[in-house]
Amino acid sequence: MPINAQILDNPKSDRVRRVADLARAKGRERSGRFLIEGPQSVREAVTWRPDVVQDLYVEVAQALDHPRIASSTLEKIVDTSQDATIYVHRCTGEVIRRISSDAQGIVAVGNANAIRWSVEDVDLGGAPQVAAFWQVRDPGNAGTVIRAADAAGCDAVVFVDDCVDMLNPKVIRSTVGSLFHLPVLTMGTEEFFAWTAAQHMDVWAADVYGIPGREPESLPSVLADPGAAGRPKTVLFGNEARGLEPGILARCGRIVSIPLYGKAESLNLATSAAVMLMSLAMSRHIETM
Amino acid sequence: MPINAQILDNPKSDRVRRVADLARAKGRERSGRFLIEGPQSVREAVTWRPDVVQDLYVEVAQALDHPRIASSTLEKIVDTSQDATIYVHRCTGEVIRRISSDAQGIVAVGNANAIRWSVEDVDLGGAPQVAAFWQVRDPGNAGTVIRAADAAGCDAVVFVDDCVDMLNPKVIRSTVGSLFHLPVLTMGTEEFFAWTAAQHMDVWAADVYGIPGREPESLPSVLADPGAAGRPKTVLFGNEARGLEPGILARCGRIVSIPLYGKAESLNLATSAAVMLMSLAMSRHIETM
Repeated sequence: MPINAQILDNPKSDRVRRVADLARAKGRERSGRFLIEGPQSVREAVTWRPDVVQDLYVEVAQALDHPRIASSTLEKIVDTSQDATIYVHRCTGEVIRRISSDAQGIVAVGNANAIRWSVEDVDLGGAPQVAAFWQVRDPGNAGTVIRAADAAGCDAVVFVDDCVDMLNPKVIRSTVGSLFHLPVLTMGTEEFFAWTAAQHMDVWAADVYGIPGREPESLPSVLADPGAAGRPKTVLFGNEARGLEPGILARCGRIVSIPLYGKAESLNLATSAAVMLMSLAMSRHIETM
Repeated sequence: MPINAQILDNPKSDRVRRVADLARAKGRERSGRFLIEGPQSVREAVTWRPDVVQDLYVEVAQALDHPRIASSTLEKIVDTSQDATIYVHRCTGEVIRRISSDAQGIVAVGNANAIRWSVEDVDLGGAPQVAAFWQVRDPGNAGTVIRAADAAGCDAVVFVDDCVDMLNPKVIRSTVGSLFHLPVLTMGTEEFFAWTAAQHMDVWAADVYGIPGREPESLPSVLADPGAAGRPKTVLFGNEARGLEPGILARCGRIVSIPLYGKAESLNLATSAAVMLMSLAMSRHIETM
């Protein structure tokens, strides 16, 4: 835990500007780094993936003659990071707020290459359960579905085709740390179907419409089908507005829809993903009880 | 469908100012009215609860010599409203945008008294399934949980104790029309327990911690318990940050927690409500399949 002796107090310095610039895609591309904002996300990053974290910027209390880290919560996070080679920079509140309005006293800078998983790095185990999202565009949704997949015990998340950048700060904030809990892969559509086939996983589409000649199965029937929930599989969800294309649905082994029992016409993507992934996870658990 | 012959074109008129003012709690209290914004919410309101809607404000295309409603979507909504006594006011785009930045061409003004349900008005049927929320404060959450309860086929939603105003425009937008699909009641904590007892409903608390001597039961065990999902009951969810107070938990017949299978530490309120209510609904459905 090398701690920079000097306290950063100039919100207009080059370093501060460069860190703040990681909120933008351009800044991340240029530097190969990304921003992790707020105590909860930073804590999960230094706990589960200290190899990803390069720098911590943490607020010190105003008495600069005896600078102390601003709170015990922040102090604990800095302590957690001490076994790894993470550079700790103490900053004034003004500097932290210039870096990010969502910092709440702490931000980390991560190495983008270290958090981007390739398929070779992912060990899925015996009966893999994967959640995949095709063309998800909204950063809040993307983060929330990573969190739901984590809660459901999925072995990996895949963003397929043209999705939002998983290192967008809004995505990371919405994962509430889950980005650092499980592998998140990005791949094209063809690569996705090749990979799931090579891993002997079925692909189930989450979709309410189906295609001509193939009505979706209702999720409760699937849950009532013994062994179905436990089979090695990827559940694939579509774009927020357009769902999944017929050409993609036709390549999926099952098409499964969430029933609506009242008058609501739909559930949004994040809610659908949570309901389907958690139901399947609980069903697997009931079968092994 | 009385249509005002005159086209409202003055964004600074008293009428326009008064309608825009319904976005604020003060404006709603003063007038006893509330705002319904955007095609989806307005369509659901005029379809399911035309008795609640007093006025429609709809955008006309710019050629004011031959004013036409701005799109076929909006025209259909106006047509749907024609059997009820709803006053239709055609407006310029400028006026509509002054009323609400979320109008997308149409807003309705509703009668607050007509949408506020009292317990005498609610017919719960034989085996009622109710979703209740104690001290929910975030408007987006409040709307999303009404939508989830609707999707799960709940017979009513109850906001218990000091919750956000269900007529806050953000709540209504987040329900995506569900506010007009099922009864939404508000009551104090004592009234809530008296009402559920009078209706012979169990109260189940959704809670991860439990109280001394009472660990929560895990949702999958409850789902595996034959008949449990179908029993007459209210599922009660707590505040976003603080959950439910021990004093309230002690009064609930069951305490049920959603298991987390990965490394995620929690699910947010809206996700928890969707997962629990939908799982119970699907379980009831499987048992009757």
